[in-house]
Amino acid sequence: MKKAKKKINAAILIIGNEVLSGRTQDANVSFLSNWLNINCGITIEEVRIIPDIEKKIIFNVLDLSKKFKYVFTTGGIGPTHDDITAQSISKAFKIKYEYHKEAFEILEKYYGKIKFNDGRKKMAKMPSGTSLIYNPSSAAPGFKIKNVFCLPGVPSILKSMVNNLKVHLIKGLVTMSMTFNLRTVESFIAYDLEKLQNRYKKKVDIGSYPFFKLGKVSVAIVLRSQNKKSIKNCEKELIKIIKKKNIKLIKKY
Amino acid sequence: MKKAKKKINAAILIIGNEVLSGRTQDANVSFLSNWLNINCGITIEEVRIIPDIEKKIIFNVLDLSKKFKYVFTTGGIGPTHDDITAQSISKAFKIKYEYHKEAFEILEKYYGKIKFNDGRKKMAKMPSGTSLIYNPSSAAPGFKIKNVFCLPGVPSILKSMVNNLKVHLIKGLVTMSMTFNLRTVESFIAYDLEKLQNRYKKKVDIGSYPFFKLGKVSVAIVLRSQNKKSIKNCEKELIKIIKKKNIKLIKKY
Repeated sequence: MKKAKKKINAAILIIGNEVLSGRTQDANVSFLSNWLNINCGITIEEVRIIPDIEKKIIFNVLDLSKKFKYVFTTGGIGPTHDDITAQSISKAFKIKYEYHKEAFEILEKYYGKIKFNDGRKKMAKMPSGTSLIYNPSSAAPGFKIKNVFCLPGVPSILKSMVNNLKVHLIKGLVTMSMTFNLRTVESFIAYDLEKLQNRYKKKVDIGSYPFFKLGKVSVAIVLRSQNKKSIKNCEKELIKIIKKKNIKLIKKY
Repeated sequence: MKKAKKKINAAILIIGNEVLSGRTQDANVSFLSNWLNINCGITIEEVRIIPDIEKKIIFNVLDLSKKFKYVFTTGGIGPTHDDITAQSISKAFKIKYEYHKEAFEILEKYYGKIKFNDGRKKMAKMPSGTSLIYNPSSAAPGFKIKNVFCLPGVPSILKSMVNNLKVHLIKGLVTMSMTFNLRTVESFIAYDLEKLQNRYKKKVDIGSYPFFKLGKVSVAIVLRSQNKKSIKNCEKELIKIIKKKNIKLIKKY
């Protein structure tokens, strides 16, 4: 994996009526975003969920691929009529949509010649000249075209494939994070946090997230930074604030 | 609730670094999308997740409010420095950001004069001329400005508030859905499904979603339509296909 000493950004494009309608709870954003940060130093800066509609796929793929270094799509690369990601992306980039020789061979070998029906053959059709992203669990590969990486929607299959993304990606700076779960309310600590954030402008991103635990209101303060020294210094100052205000620290991780 | 005999579309804009980074698994899209469809006949057609960055909030609020009938934002309306939704939307629409008299009174009453500190007062600051969306669980109201509805990010609080959205919304056509869980693989049924979809073009949306249950591959076929007769007819034809192909129906709902 090549390395760059800078932040590398990316977007996730989830293609699927089932997530939009609320029928299916997305699980890929949280996994992919964490995985990309930890393993590849890539920061997800935008996510979009759109329906299985060709013109919407075309618009969003082109828009996001211009705005971000990488785009990861999930969904729409299976064998049925509503799987239109590959042909839509071919149209978006004005590239021929055709059988990928290696993908065809992988799938033919996996299913056997007799069971390799038209639906399954469809999964070997891609924009011309793509690189494959191998799939160790169910054979049907994802693919990379320009700066866009197409992955399946089923979380367990997607998870099995992500290691095969690395070879295509440049590694950026990993965002470190540190979480303080506090038994307090946000407004009790808001003023001090704001002053702290102002002192670490652009160096550390400080987030404050209320949550309920066993009926009690609590707050998670999250520090995030690409710089080890900055996050360490900010941590020390936050601990001082917590002690000064006599707040109970439930957990730090 | 006023009614319109047509489809009404909307977008959800999730504002929050914690969802983008993968630290927090979003739970609002699935709930809101389902709730809006069933209770208000409103169909979510796009979701975006963006960071707590002013210019990104401004761009996306303006963009989505032009493209969709309604926009629902979640997150960023609390008391801390990273809660910048209200002021960003004020800037987006070039409307003064100021104390909302009623919101101020609600919060002052809820906390009591002594505990009503600056952080808490911030939650009463909104774009001038907004309508409030009352919050029965933790007092701090959401608000409506133009066609944009601002809700909190904490799922339990959001859930407690949605009934108070109804008064502001026009009811559209509810999308009915029907799910068939089948013990089969997608490619075995792909050809028949495609023919079925072609017969019900624009009347019924047919989705096919593979899933694993007890280690076995299964497929959920989902029919969605705003027209009762069409979905009923499509259902009958799907049942014929299932019988003809001798596929085991695990569950229908």
